Amino acid sequence: MKIGFFGVGNMGGPMAANLVKAGHEVTAFDLVPALLEAASAAGARAVDQPALAVQGAEVVISMLPSAKAVTGLYLGEQGILDLIDPDTLIIDCSTIDAATSRRVAGIAADNGRVMIDAPVSGGVGGAKAGTPTFICGGPADAVEQARPLLECMGKNIFRAGDSGAGQVAKICNNMLLAVHMIGTAEALQMGVDHGLDPAALSEIMRASSGGNWSLEVYNPWPGVMPNVPASNGYQGGFGVNLMNKDLGLALEAALTSGSSTPMGALARSLYAAHANQGHGGLDFSSIQTYFRSRDAD
Amino acid sequence: MKIGFFGVGNMGGPMAANLVKAGHEVTAFDLVPALLEAASAAGARAVDQPALAVQGAEVVISMLPSAKAVTGLYLGEQGILDLIDPDTLIIDCSTIDAATSRRVAGIAADNGRVMIDAPVSGGVGGAKAGTPTFICGGPADAVEQARPLLECMGKNIFRAGDSGAGQVAKICNNMLLAVHMIGTAEALQMGVDHGLDPAALSEIMRASSGGNWSLEVYNPWPGVMPNVPASNGYQGGFGVNLMNKDLGLALEAALTSGSSTPMGALARSLYAAHANQGHGGLDFSSIQTYFRSRDAD
Amino acid sequence: MKIGFFGVGNMGGPMAANLVKAGHEVTAFDLVPALLEAASAAGARAVDQPALAVQGAEVVISMLPSAKAVTGLYLGEQGILDLIDPDTLIIDCSTIDAATSRRVAGIAADNGRVMIDAPVSGGVGGAKAGTPTFICGGPADAVEQARPLLECMGKNIFRAGDSGAGQVAKICNNMLLAVHMIGTAEALQMGVDHGLDPAALSEIMRASSGGNWSLEVYNPWPGVMPNVPASNGYQGGFGVNLMNKDLGLALEAALTSGSSTPMGALARSLYAAHANQGHGGLDFSSIQTYFRSRDAD
Amino acid sequence: MKIGFFGVGNMGGPMAANLVKAGHEVTAFDLVPALLEAASAAGARAVDQPALAVQGAEVVISMLPSAKAVTGLYLGEQGILDLIDPDTLIIDCSTIDAATSRRVAGIAADNGRVMIDAPVSGGVGGAKAGTPTFICGGPADAVEQARPLLECMGKNIFRAGDSGAGQVAKICNNMLLAVHMIGTAEALQMGVDHGLDPAALSEIMRASSGGNWSLEVYNPWPGVMPNVPASNGYQGGFGVNLMNKDLGLALEAALTSGSSTPMGALARSLYAAHANQGHGGLDFSSIQTYFRSRDAD
Repeated sequence: MKIGFFGVGNMGGPMAANLVKAGHEVTAFDLVPALLEAASAAGARAVDQPALAVQGAEVVISMLPSAKAVTGLYLGEQGILDLIDPDTLIIDCSTIDAATSRRVAGIAADNGRVMIDAPVSGGVGGAKAGTPTFICGGPADAVEQARPLLECMGKNIFRAGDSGAGQVAKICNNMLLAVHMIGTAEALQMGVDHGLDPAALSEIMRASSGGNWSLEVYNPWPGVMPNVPASNGYQGGFGVNLMNKDLGLALEAALTSGSSTPMGALARSLYAAHANQGHGGLDFSSIQTYFRSRDAD
Repeated sequence: MKIGFFGVGNMGGPMAANLVKAGHEVTAFDLVPALLEAASAAGARAVDQPALAVQGAEVVISMLPSAKAVTGLYLGEQGILDLIDPDTLIIDCSTIDAATSRRVAGIAADNGRVMIDAPVSGGVGGAKAGTPTFICGGPADAVEQARPLLECMGKNIFRAGDSGAGQVAKICNNMLLAVHMIGTAEALQMGVDHGLDPAALSEIMRASSGGNWSLEVYNPWPGVMPNVPASNGYQGGFGVNLMNKDLGLALEAALTSGSSTPMGALARSLYAAHANQGHGGLDFSSIQTYFRSRDAD
Repeated sequence: MKIGFFGVGNMGGPMAANLVKAGHEVTAFDLVPALLEAASAAGARAVDQPALAVQGAEVVISMLPSAKAVTGLYLGEQGILDLIDPDTLIIDCSTIDAATSRRVAGIAADNGRVMIDAPVSGGVGGAKAGTPTFICGGPADAVEQARPLLECMGKNIFRAGDSGAGQVAKICNNMLLAVHMIGTAEALQMGVDHGLDPAALSEIMRASSGGNWSLEVYNPWPGVMPNVPASNGYQGGFGVNLMNKDLGLALEAALTSGSSTPMGALARSLYAAHANQGHGGLDFSSIQTYFRSRDAD
Repeated sequence: MKIGFFGVGNMGGPMAANLVKAGHEVTAFDLVPALLEAASAAGARAVDQPALAVQGAEVVISMLPSAKAVTGLYLGEQGILDLIDPDTLIIDCSTIDAATSRRVAGIAADNGRVMIDAPVSGGVGGAKAGTPTFICGGPADAVEQARPLLECMGKNIFRAGDSGAGQVAKICNNMLLAVHMIGTAEALQMGVDHGLDPAALSEIMRASSGGNWSLEVYNPWPGVMPNVPASNGYQGGFGVNLMNKDLGLALEAALTSGSSTPMGALARSLYAAHANQGHGGLDFSSIQTYFRSRDAD
């Protein structure tokens, strides 16, 4: 298929490359020339104007860093929404607030276009390996139409509900991820403070009712698991700053609906403190170091 | 084998019954006559004095509700420690604080007896089904000696480390369980507050990085999963009051070691509020109702 | 002075009445006829079009419930900003987010008008008694110009800094208020749970290092202090829903600046749970009842 | 009066010295010779055996660091309880758990002695200046009997209730102190993150509903207030490790009574993290630095 792809950065770049690998014809646009060059090297056709990426596209995919960027791309002064063929499916993979997601999809619908939200869970590593999860919101038939393409880029494709539901489900998921990652880190540290071996304790909790994704595939204690950021100086992976962005979206959603989220709100404050203490660039499992004892000053 | 079994209540009763089923000769003692009768009906020999349960026992197992009960049984005025044959292995399955566990095992060792701690994770339902997890602390060879017996009563047998380590690992695990149960409950409520279907959201998070034991086998939202307390009016299962007991042990451990456990401490306060609001007798997944919107007064 | 007053509800009504009492000529506008009638009864001139309240006004004051209402009034299709005489000082007493406050004041400045933010702390009771605090943001000379008028309506007038600073200072204050109110409530309940008399404990903490505004003038335990909502079934005062609104503004501000606010975030989640449990209409000191033991279900 | 004084360290030393200044005859005992020498230099008679400090004493005062030390002094193998004249009033100023306090006082009562608990709030600085608060538990007439002596050492003398009530009230107070200190610190940082001046914001909150003891006399932002630890590199004052000890006592009390203390529990975890990050020796207002932004690593 002919695909117009907007945003080929850390996440979008590997996703576009995986579409190329699957045999699709990808035309890429990005504001950063170096990213466009990388996309070109990966087999995409690079263009220097948004309109050129829309031309002839059967599907338009966007992967942008903020709500402002998404509204700018589709609805801004040189917005592409009107240029997109009404038969073309629009898939926005950006993680943004659900309200904006619904608003842009609503305007698209008013103009006869179908747009779904399909934010990604699984990080940059997942994007490269083609294993992330896409969590979609929008009409069921549109999500089904998108599914084969999304399967070129990810492993699991879910439909959470109508427009915006993909965004809501993703931030619910990432809020819960932050909660059990911190919970795991503090449980491990407490065990070690009482003389336990972190690997033994990890295995016990993983196989018991404490089991969770962090213990299963992303253990935060250095050396317990190979090939995870914790065993590589907390480099790579899913950065603290990105987790903070998602937790911010989660808390905004909680404020909108008046929901009480004590665990998620605490997770956000702990990650914010961790970032402010200078660790925003590390992987989010580095919250383990927050609990570590240091020499007194 | 000949087993002296002390404490045949909600947990100990089914455990003793499973030992009988496996062909062991169980002599049971309990302060509550009705419990002893039930044990007798399940095939154990009931005795009305502790000393009689020790006589000839190759293994002594205790399953008691508090540290005070454990010290009373073994070290009290009519304590049984001195009556136990030095070759007899002592397995204390009670969930108590690690310090007491270490102290009693230490006194046993000073008197030439081997005692391990083997607290149970998995609740009353698990005890009946013979599927709970035993988390052991003590000498490696003693744990290996206990393993065949423990396997008659449970599915997974772990050794966490030396004496007391079983207790530490269990409360680390249960603290983490409380954290992800509450985190799951608040994430589900927030999703529903934004119009999502709780079953769809549960499935998405279960299969994504939010995945945890609560979503896997113990979903707190009524009707999402059959055969869990949430789908049965939060009856049965693992009570809020019992979770509070374990969270109390966890916080005491954190105070002892000076560990920071923000998530676990918050979980304890939320479960304490939930109990004080009148729900201590419900299953611990009833924390879901804490987040539910009610009519204004 | 001739004053155009917009928004004469729970807070604005008494404020306008106090200006009248002080001898000022107040022309009031509100979308709700009943409120306008009440303002008229209090001596203001009621008009049914915003433009009529601006005509001849030497000062324009607004007291509106949301950022949307403020932008609508000044910048909307029938916005009054352009109708205001350039020599007229604009005082917005609404509690809204600082970003909107700065934006509207900035547009006013670009159009040659001076606008300050002057949100109010002290509740409806304070507004009636003329005792609330005004926390101002804007040019120092404009705040000085506003001071005599504000002193007709309130007791303390502060300048927190430039445009928007009044909003920031107010939500910092109210976040801290929520924190020490909940902290006070849980400390009182814990003391009572251990047999202490709440009045004796209140007096001890008030006079010691636990001392705070809640203990000083707004004790949350029923009967400890006369003439506070706690001693009147938690009626009147500053509602839980209003506190939640301010805590929402505080958390949004924390997200904007990346600040870690663990206590404030927890306070917001506890107040949200309290509201969702049906108590949003009570005074915010009713959080005391959150901690009370109830009969088991 | 003739006073036997046990424990003349950071707190007890200045207290004994103030008794001497007031004209009392103080005989001091301590396990640390250097402390005894200092007490001697301050005018007390130093003795090297507990029994010698009891001889002829009309009042016995103890100021010890732990429950173990208190039980050891009064009830240990060489315990002094039996040596104390039945007419002699015993005042224990140590901060320990209420249960131990009640137990020791109960044993004293069984043996015909009257003992009150009178823990101190106000720190080392307060002890030197003679300005701390004594929070007493015990029979009303015994507290009245103690009052003139306590007034030689402190400014405010309160009776919280029966035996142990002084301990409960003190930890309620200090838990609340920790809560509003952290709340104050995070509010100040958030204001500064939005461009406000910390001194202006402090003054606004102090005079408004956010007002509390921290803002009144112990501002945590460096330079806002002279002569506080924050303006002296967080040296002196009331150490983080001591606050952690009191928060530990508070949480143990909450566990005993099943009270929910979300704010206090969070404060304890934040102070534990602060200590573990190497700042246990600083004044407790140094929690301000926890919220400060640092360069990224």
